Amino acid sequence: MLTLYFAAHTCSLASHIALLDAKATYQLKRVDFGRTEQRSLAYLEINPKARVPALVTPRGILTETPAILAFIAHSFPEARLAPIDDPFAFAELQAFNNYLCSTLHVAHAHRVRGNRWADDPASFADMKRKVPQSVGACYELIERRMLKGPWIMGESYTIADPYLFTVAQWLEDDGVDPARVPRVMEHRSRMAERANVKRAIVEELAD
Amino acid sequence: MLTLYFAAHTCSLASHIALLDAKATYQLKRVDFGRTEQRSLAYLEINPKARVPALVTPRGILTETPAILAFIAHSFPEARLAPIDDPFAFAELQAFNNYLCSTLHVAHAHRVRGNRWADDPASFADMKRKVPQSVGACYELIERRMLKGPWIMGESYTIADPYLFTVAQWLEDDGVDPARVPRVMEHRSRMAERANVKRAIVEELAD
Repeated sequence: MLTLYFAAHTCSLASHIALLDAKATYQLKRVDFGRTEQRSLAYLEINPKARVPALVTPRGILTETPAILAFIAHSFPEARLAPIDDPFAFAELQAFNNYLCSTLHVAHAHRVRGNRWADDPASFADMKRKVPQSVGACYELIERRMLKGPWIMGESYTIADPYLFTVAQWLEDDGVDPARVPRVMEHRSRMAERANVKRAIVEELAD
Repeated sequence: MLTLYFAAHTCSLASHIALLDAKATYQLKRVDFGRTEQRSLAYLEINPKARVPALVTPRGILTETPAILAFIAHSFPEARLAPIDDPFAFAELQAFNNYLCSTLHVAHAHRVRGNRWADDPASFADMKRKVPQSVGACYELIERRMLKGPWIMGESYTIADPYLFTVAQWLEDDGVDPARVPRVMEHRSRMAERANVKRAIVEELAD
């Protein structure tokens, strides 16, 4: 049994969708960000980084979305969620997911989490003003150079697809003009129609 | 043949050391940050993100340190640089490397790359002041919870070791007190004595 610690509207949705894609048996545990439960002593024992997602497995606890996604793909090879027997193709997929976590998600986080990197409210406002530009540049690179189509890595759906879909939920709130990235928007719409995506969102909002 | 695009004193050192550990045949190409060569049209064809490292392989170009390190480990299995047959252990290793790229390296980058996320010189100064705290918190977590010892993942040396060694070069300049993280410092010293680490540094400075 796997247990996913999640919060709605965060990047944990990517791992949740991948668990459904893998036909994994899992349970969900909500981390209540409204009560800053991510900083509770109980949750810090699960994930001392005070973030979601965290995936509790029989072997131990995993964190970091690209690592959890790779774990799901490796653990359920019959779901064919990653080219696990091809070192180059697997690394290319990991590079995409790493870009989302270390560049796109980081740029996005400057809109409301400026206190991670600064202290002055004037700095927070400055950071917030730049988000449309910094996040927008990430999406334009994805649009022009990284999204192969129809799926991110090409003909095969992979763990990169639920991850881009998840972070792309925040695109309009980040001030990015959807008209600038039609291929990203088409991918997001197509993902939103998938049964597992709909089910994951319903589970997160209903729980 | 593999070609590593690198710049001295950057995170590309981790991939360089791993290539030596893997006994790979490679050539180095310096990207001259002093002349902002990373933004030249020629280099943007190699890596449109305008960053290092980039690894040119016979199949195509890879970016993002955790992905390049995983590619090297998978491509040279006889070097035993990662537990590639154990999905949980491999994911745990990827989670460590992801933490370095998406949290520690990002916190560090606020010292001199504030213009990625803000525009006002006052914001840059504010960000710079917070680096000892934000980077320090990352090292304390690594010290207390993540570095298993003697190597990062335990008894076996892996691709996580050159990566932590590389980013830990910046620890004092980031204002972190080495006395707070003795295990990280011991790991850095032990890594510095390895022949491949010495050779990689000599190659980068001499080239």
